Amino acid sequence: MTDLVGQAHQRASALLRRWVAETHTPVAEGSLRLTIGPLRVGTEVVYVSPTGAHGFGPIHVLDGGGEPVAVADAGLLAAACSAEARARALPDAPINAPESGTLVDWVLDALPRGGVDPLGWPDDLVAVARSISDAAEAQRWLTAHVESRLLPAVLGWDSGDLAAATATLLTRGVLAVIGVLGRCGVVHESQLLDELAARLRGIAETHPAVQRLVQHWLGSPTVTDLAAVNGSELRYRSESGSVAVRAVPFEVANPLAPDAPDVPGVPLPELTEGWSLRPVRLAGGDVELVHRWMSTEHVAVNWNQAWPLARWRDELAGQLAGRHSLPCVVGLDGRDVAYLELYRVRRDKLARCYPYDAHDLGVHIAIGEADAIGRGVGTALLRAVAQGLLAADPQCRRVVAEPNVHNGASVGAFAKAGFRRDREVGLPGKNSALMVFDRR
Amino acid sequence: MTDLVGQAHQRASALLRRWVAETHTPVAEGSLRLTIGPLRVGTEVVYVSPTGAHGFGPIHVLDGGGEPVAVADAGLLAAACSAEARARALPDAPINAPESGTLVDWVLDALPRGGVDPLGWPDDLVAVARSISDAAEAQRWLTAHVESRLLPAVLGWDSGDLAAATATLLTRGVLAVIGVLGRCGVVHESQLLDELAARLRGIAETHPAVQRLVQHWLGSPTVTDLAAVNGSELRYRSESGSVAVRAVPFEVANPLAPDAPDVPGVPLPELTEGWSLRPVRLAGGDVELVHRWMSTEHVAVNWNQAWPLARWRDELAGQLAGRHSLPCVVGLDGRDVAYLELYRVRRDKLARCYPYDAHDLGVHIAIGEADAIGRGVGTALLRAVAQGLLAADPQCRRVVAEPNVHNGASVGAFAKAGFRRDREVGLPGKNSALMVFDRR
Repeated sequence: MTDLVGQAHQRASALLRRWVAETHTPVAEGSLRLTIGPLRVGTEVVYVSPTGAHGFGPIHVLDGGGEPVAVADAGLLAAACSAEARARALPDAPINAPESGTLVDWVLDALPRGGVDPLGWPDDLVAVARSISDAAEAQRWLTAHVESRLLPAVLGWDSGDLAAATATLLTRGVLAVIGVLGRCGVVHESQLLDELAARLRGIAETHPAVQRLVQHWLGSPTVTDLAAVNGSELRYRSESGSVAVRAVPFEVANPLAPDAPDVPGVPLPELTEGWSLRPVRLAGGDVELVHRWMSTEHVAVNWNQAWPLARWRDELAGQLAGRHSLPCVVGLDGRDVAYLELYRVRRDKLARCYPYDAHDLGVHIAIGEADAIGRGVGTALLRAVAQGLLAADPQCRRVVAEPNVHNGASVGAFAKAGFRRDREVGLPGKNSALMVFDRR
Repeated sequence: MTDLVGQAHQRASALLRRWVAETHTPVAEGSLRLTIGPLRVGTEVVYVSPTGAHGFGPIHVLDGGGEPVAVADAGLLAAACSAEARARALPDAPINAPESGTLVDWVLDALPRGGVDPLGWPDDLVAVARSISDAAEAQRWLTAHVESRLLPAVLGWDSGDLAAATATLLTRGVLAVIGVLGRCGVVHESQLLDELAARLRGIAETHPAVQRLVQHWLGSPTVTDLAAVNGSELRYRSESGSVAVRAVPFEVANPLAPDAPDVPGVPLPELTEGWSLRPVRLAGGDVELVHRWMSTEHVAVNWNQAWPLARWRDELAGQLAGRHSLPCVVGLDGRDVAYLELYRVRRDKLARCYPYDAHDLGVHIAIGEADAIGRGVGTALLRAVAQGLLAADPQCRRVVAEPNVHNGASVGAFAKAGFRRDREVGLPGKNSALMVFDRR
């Protein structure tokens, strides 16, 4: 009889690894505590992987006081992930249709078959990952793999679906194997990643026909992977009712991309048509104003940041000291009505979610004065801010925002202001509609 | 940190124990293999309990070949039990309403609270069961419990709901503690059960006012318990959406009931109105006839016994040699058209499902000749058989049947023949409508 406890941990780890990747949750070595739907989970991150192949210690369910009370097994994690993914998605999303099934259906179906991951890889890659036992062997495998398998596949690529080719050949191919070799301590992932990048550059030089695909792999800040535990379009049952994971694409940080060139902090936009805007001042009442706005019900319900005054003072001082985001107070016809956070996507959590440009800017908005809501005020402000940001940074090609998909009023206001709905992205705690205002 | 693996086993065992009880599945020491919805499960029964407090070794998920491939944890068992309970119940049963939740909701809610069983007992009984460490102490506890707790409760009983009083005071009270003490090896359950029965007899003699309740506990072949994993009326969410198990009553074999007096085998009914009936003859073509009927699609879909001829020969010979059931061929106007199994409930699996009388008789029916179906033929036959059985055994007060609740045609035919629908009972593999034809 095989090591069932080890297998149970493997299975739970695979689900946790997916959840972390698919919700774009940052991971660092040490203690990791997560809330997955109705479940609080704690573990030790024992290996942080650039390809997402993180290694976890025992995964526990935590009680209200944060103490471990049970081993978090696959069935339970699947149920919690499903409950969460369904709650984040809109009621009419495919994942909320009863006939779509849940991740638990997959677990019930997979266990007797020995399935570990809702999206297993090709058998030969699994065999490879298991057979290699030292760094030299790993290097030889990579060389052979690129020559005999990746290159022919890339050359045979029909220039159609960039995302599908990336998922099949890169993230769920060579990168997946590199991740497992790293996690198992066979080799440093960065060593194989450097080697792979060098070989890909060689391919691009020698074969101009496939430059587009290879450059995408080498340069894009994110690459496409397949999601199986989070995403509103997921299904776990085919139309005939049999269990089959229908995965959906999502973007994941690209471990092959070089560090992006530096970009300046957030520029101060000039607003038109009666609007004024100033960075928050730490003295003179702005902190109190933001604190008051954040405590009002209509703001708190979406921002969930009804913090004490002292915490807001720290938060604002921190933002003002850095180059990630710029907190601002907006006035309309001389009266302060709204709070804005303008941010560089490159320094934001959104950088893990879509293939951004280095100069992309983002905006969070809270209209603090309840009587200023409605009559298109928000829409007008968003348009003015987007236009102001594009004017303030000539290299910026787009302004983005990420309202909760459940916040129809906000999504609608962005849409009316000229933002297009690009995609739905999973984040820790919500599914966001990525709204994009392109430079025209 | 407490013993999480031990707790996980405890939790999985509690669910398995409930499933076994609530589906009236017989349990014997040794290897136990079950199919719970989509999941095949295997374990070792290390302790068989008269009160249902069975002890299990490690509980495993089995692969297609019957080999263990995973530890069957609580989340998984809950999901499998829910899937099965929902599939057995009719689509419009409460358990199939999305807002009723599933057993998985309970697990997700219970784990952080340290919950082990969907229907925990009163805290003081848990404390008692944990504190007693030897047989003498157990005897002292039983004496004190009957005097100071059970007797006052029984005397205070308002003669209303027999089932509720039984569940609260007996099955989920004193019997539950006796079961745990037995499973933990503190005392033989039979010893405490004998003692309890003696004390209850004493109570009935001294307090005629509560004779009805106490006699029920001492004499009924089954007693009421609460079901939490099987049953079409189950719910796991309150109307407000919060997690709360709404359990349903079901009958369980009564460990206090003396062995029922012997009853004769199944009498041969005389049928009227053109019907004839004979016990199956092992020579002369009857075995071949039954085998052919069982292989036809319209019979196989409900009986699921399209066995090879040899197996049917063994089956029929076995039935004819015993006193449990009598296999018969039924003719209409001289032509053989149907197969019947007439049985003593007392010797049948149904004996675990409702408070039967010793002389209760049951009937299984298969109309083998497809062209004899319809035009009320089945209904007429069922009425003739029920009346014939009541005539053949003057002590028999009722004839019963247990068609699958999904088999509307069969349930309808029994109803038209004069059977009333008594209750829904869970059995291994189906939910049955208990149909009862009373002597009038």
